[in-house]
Amino acid sequence: MKFGRFTFDNHIYNGVIEEEIINIIEGNPMSDWSYTNSKVSINDVEFLAPITPKNVIGIGANYVKDKESLPNEIPEMPVFFLKPSTSVIGPNEPVVIPDQLEEVKFESELAIVIGKEAKHIQKENALEYVFGYTVGNDVTAPQFFHNDGHWTLGKSFDTFTPLGPTIETELDPYNVHVTATVNGVEKQNSPTEWMIVPIKEMIAYLSTVMTLHPGDVILTGSPIGAHFVGTDDVITCSIKEIGSLTNTFSRKSTHISVTQQ
Amino acid sequence: MKFGRFTFDNHIYNGVIEEEIINIIEGNPMSDWSYTNSKVSINDVEFLAPITPKNVIGIGANYVKDKESLPNEIPEMPVFFLKPSTSVIGPNEPVVIPDQLEEVKFESELAIVIGKEAKHIQKENALEYVFGYTVGNDVTAPQFFHNDGHWTLGKSFDTFTPLGPTIETELDPYNVHVTATVNGVEKQNSPTEWMIVPIKEMIAYLSTVMTLHPGDVILTGSPIGAHFVGTDDVITCSIKEIGSLTNTFSRKSTHISVTQQ
Repeated sequence: MKFGRFTFDNHIYNGVIEEEIINIIEGNPMSDWSYTNSKVSINDVEFLAPITPKNVIGIGANYVKDKESLPNEIPEMPVFFLKPSTSVIGPNEPVVIPDQLEEVKFESELAIVIGKEAKHIQKENALEYVFGYTVGNDVTAPQFFHNDGHWTLGKSFDTFTPLGPTIETELDPYNVHVTATVNGVEKQNSPTEWMIVPIKEMIAYLSTVMTLHPGDVILTGSPIGAHFVGTDDVITCSIKEIGSLTNTFSRKSTHISVTQQ
Repeated sequence: MKFGRFTFDNHIYNGVIEEEIINIIEGNPMSDWSYTNSKVSINDVEFLAPITPKNVIGIGANYVKDKESLPNEIPEMPVFFLKPSTSVIGPNEPVVIPDQLEEVKFESELAIVIGKEAKHIQKENALEYVFGYTVGNDVTAPQFFHNDGHWTLGKSFDTFTPLGPTIETELDPYNVHVTATVNGVEKQNSPTEWMIVPIKEMIAYLSTVMTLHPGDVILTGSPIGAHFVGTDDVITCSIKEIGSLTNTFSRKSTHISVTQQ
């Protein structure tokens, strides 16, 4: 089932998407919800980030270039980082390149949306705590990585975490391809089985550190192929079974306002 | 003015504290609020974290040992890090030492509570965006610092950010002492003027990266003297003008429930 969050007629709605039609729902997609009698066409709405997470967690350098390069053992301590909630934007909103920089990096990723509180869970049960999956672009300004290894500033700029367009709840996360195009040219395309730290291990590990809550988002790392892009470049991050997340990189924010038509 | 958040008679309230008396208020202390006619004694309540921040930002190694050691210039790129909202607890709640560790570090800090949306602000105006100040303990497990310099895991465990007991809105943040005791013995005591990155510069810098929102918390660094502590150690972080934040380090969580008397 595909959930989406969108604006239509100056209001924000959640809906269930079937092909070109959105069935508007009432309530919280992650707990109690029901269909209304209203339907809209996907062509008449503006999709928003499908979730407004409190905590966004990312993992560093998590893909190898082919199956043969997968290590026999996963790292004892993966590189995790946090991104602020203020970095989240939706599809088609501009990613704003900071004033002092010429370019920043895109990173197409499968993003996990947590559905149930998870603390000290086992990897065997980890997927039971997942509500669904969306696409993320973990935009990064490595120029703001600190010499001592801290990534926080380089990951934290406003607009640096596009998410969307939908949350697919019936995905097999081990059996999809994560892709990205820059101005229509494919730059990333890897199966998720090329992840160094697989999804179940990632969720289980994180749950030994921090309680994961419904709506938290885990960015699962980006395939080989990400690179710097600049003003007016159009990046589309896709996972076929979820949808395509397109954002243009720009200098000025033209954040979509729900008060505008 | 001192604001506090607390449980009394199984409910959560906000109040304005005057000596031993709390005047219960209605509304949001950061925007619209008014006094009720109810008063309680501070001895009859359990203080909670005075704020439930979405984003908690910290700064690394921000104090020198004496005024003479202050650098002539502040670093071009300070070390900032994020802590998850799940790490926040209140006064008297136990800090839980992760199962696999014997000890963790305490760090007493002045914590800024943002009051107004701040984006690309000038340091000269930075304090206008502050609602008030509380005391924080930036608990840290350096054993979970990654060899490549990433601090996220070591800062992110549940219960690792005690905050409280009150938010003082009329503080001069350049003119207070940040102290800590371990089992009654003083371990930290420095004036905030020994900060390497002063408060105004810190807020202004962060606002060039991420929009700061009301309720966001900035931990401003810890004086020299923090060290490892273990089970049953009692840490009190204090700023005289705000109050004392006491937490016992323990193995098991005994999170205060508002449904208990």
